[in-house]
Amino acid sequence: MSAKPGLLMFYPYMVHMAGEAAERFELVKAWEEPDLDAAIAAKGASIVAILTTGQDHPIDAALIGRLPALKVIVAVGSGYAGVDVAAARAHGVTVANAGDTHSGDVADHAIGLAFGLIQQLFPGHAYVREGTWAEKGFPPHRRALSAERFGILGLGLIGKAIAERLVPFGCEIGWWGPNDKQVPWRRHDSPLALAQWCTTLMVAARGDSLGLVDRAVIDAVGPDGHIINISRGGVIDEDALIEALCAGRLGGAGLDVFHDEPTSADRWRDVPNTILSAHMAGQTVEAMARLRSAAARNLLTALDGGAVVNEIMA
Amino acid sequence: MSAKPGLLMFYPYMVHMAGEAAERFELVKAWEEPDLDAAIAAKGASIVAILTTGQDHPIDAALIGRLPALKVIVAVGSGYAGVDVAAARAHGVTVANAGDTHSGDVADHAIGLAFGLIQQLFPGHAYVREGTWAEKGFPPHRRALSAERFGILGLGLIGKAIAERLVPFGCEIGWWGPNDKQVPWRRHDSPLALAQWCTTLMVAARGDSLGLVDRAVIDAVGPDGHIINISRGGVIDEDALIEALCAGRLGGAGLDVFHDEPTSADRWRDVPNTILSAHMAGQTVEAMARLRSAAARNLLTALDGGAVVNEIMA
Repeated sequence: MSAKPGLLMFYPYMVHMAGEAAERFELVKAWEEPDLDAAIAAKGASIVAILTTGQDHPIDAALIGRLPALKVIVAVGSGYAGVDVAAARAHGVTVANAGDTHSGDVADHAIGLAFGLIQQLFPGHAYVREGTWAEKGFPPHRRALSAERFGILGLGLIGKAIAERLVPFGCEIGWWGPNDKQVPWRRHDSPLALAQWCTTLMVAARGDSLGLVDRAVIDAVGPDGHIINISRGGVIDEDALIEALCAGRLGGAGLDVFHDEPTSADRWRDVPNTILSAHMAGQTVEAMARLRSAAARNLLTALDGGAVVNEIMA
Repeated sequence: MSAKPGLLMFYPYMVHMAGEAAERFELVKAWEEPDLDAAIAAKGASIVAILTTGQDHPIDAALIGRLPALKVIVAVGSGYAGVDVAAARAHGVTVANAGDTHSGDVADHAIGLAFGLIQQLFPGHAYVREGTWAEKGFPPHRRALSAERFGILGLGLIGKAIAERLVPFGCEIGWWGPNDKQVPWRRHDSPLALAQWCTTLMVAARGDSLGLVDRAVIDAVGPDGHIINISRGGVIDEDALIEALCAGRLGGAGLDVFHDEPTSADRWRDVPNTILSAHMAGQTVEAMARLRSAAARNLLTALDGGAVVNEIMA
């Protein structure tokens, strides 16, 4: 039996996330165990901490019940949908996430995608590079950014960060979310009403709002409008989105997230007026450092009994 | 002799700029006159107004002296370098420009070009569209926008509008201009010092600052940095810029203006890490409407003696 307490993890990159804290643990790497049940039976008594993505592998009551020494479950990220928080707390186990490590970065990326579409950066670049400017003169005038109406769907940390960043651009800002909030921007009655009003729909809804942006919402944004998604792919009916783009019923889409990730190149090959990115909105060097730091601190808490950062109460 | 007073203009699109006001004048279209001197000799006595781009055709003392009825020279835009303001005023002629019709739009476009480079929208899009995501997994983490240092070269209307818009993004902002100003951002000692400090250089200097961004400034921005230009092409040593981009000594460039416009496609074909646009930063539907409105009001002033908008005093 090892002298070090055990740390259970499910994906190789979690070793990196644990940082220097990993040295103080015996790592139980689920992906290296041919029989995870047997491994937990053998090593479960020494496991004091779990490091998880918070969503991919279920940390349920059954697993928690088999780990009598468990003190902390650390979700590396903001989500923790895969963790049975009530069961953990009933066993005296603390659950923590990484807090707000990257909502600002994600908001920045949403705005970059939106500006890229509104300011026609891709067709504008092609216009110069392909010689159309020299051949045909100036392109047609475009709508000013200040004439844009941004509809923010979901006013959580990310949605609010988007709104705050847009203020000095002088454009109109509206939003919808299930609960009213004390903010200076007008709340619309429904996602559909927001889509009918706005020229650019910024999707920042909870990742589990599956199908919130359906065919009717997409059509309401319309041929002069754009849809940006930095939430989760499932929030949009992606087939309907592609169909609307191909038919010219939607002006453009800036997407960082997709139904299936990685999304296939074939799926987007003939779809016009898109700016796509590989779920990288929050993947900045700085956010990753904040994530690692929060994870490492919470792991050490499991050993030393300090204060847990970003404890989740329910 | 026409019953209507004369309006002299030098380019066809000025007819559009005059809008409905044009109906109250006899238009003297310089481009349709085989002998402009003769036309001015014949019609000069009735000409009460000139509509000009403010830069392309010189409105000098000699011309002004031949137009005894002239009351107003209206520059459609913010520049009026081609107008001899002192000579006009000595003849009792009012000079007006269109005021600040599009500094906000130009600032927006500068930010769009900068974000496009910083957030790697073009290579990021190719990464998804060419199937690299599916093949190789996530792209490397990138620097957060909030870690960026924006150096604004020239803090006039446009430079200041850029700075104000960047504030909520949490990045650092510095600037250089020939005169100190009461602003919350640090003024650096020279263009070179600003370039050494910043990660993205936003060129918003006066259009006549020829060669201000020279080889040394470009190299100071360096391989991890970007240069954005929405001022005038001549402000940057464009050959040196292209050389630095091709050699990887400069990280990227977002350019709306060029030495020669339209710039040729061949000149940029093999230049990496650029986002180019066809001098369209200020060419929005809304800015054009403001320009026309200011021009028309000042033309009618020449007839009716109302208050001139945006009179230029020297």
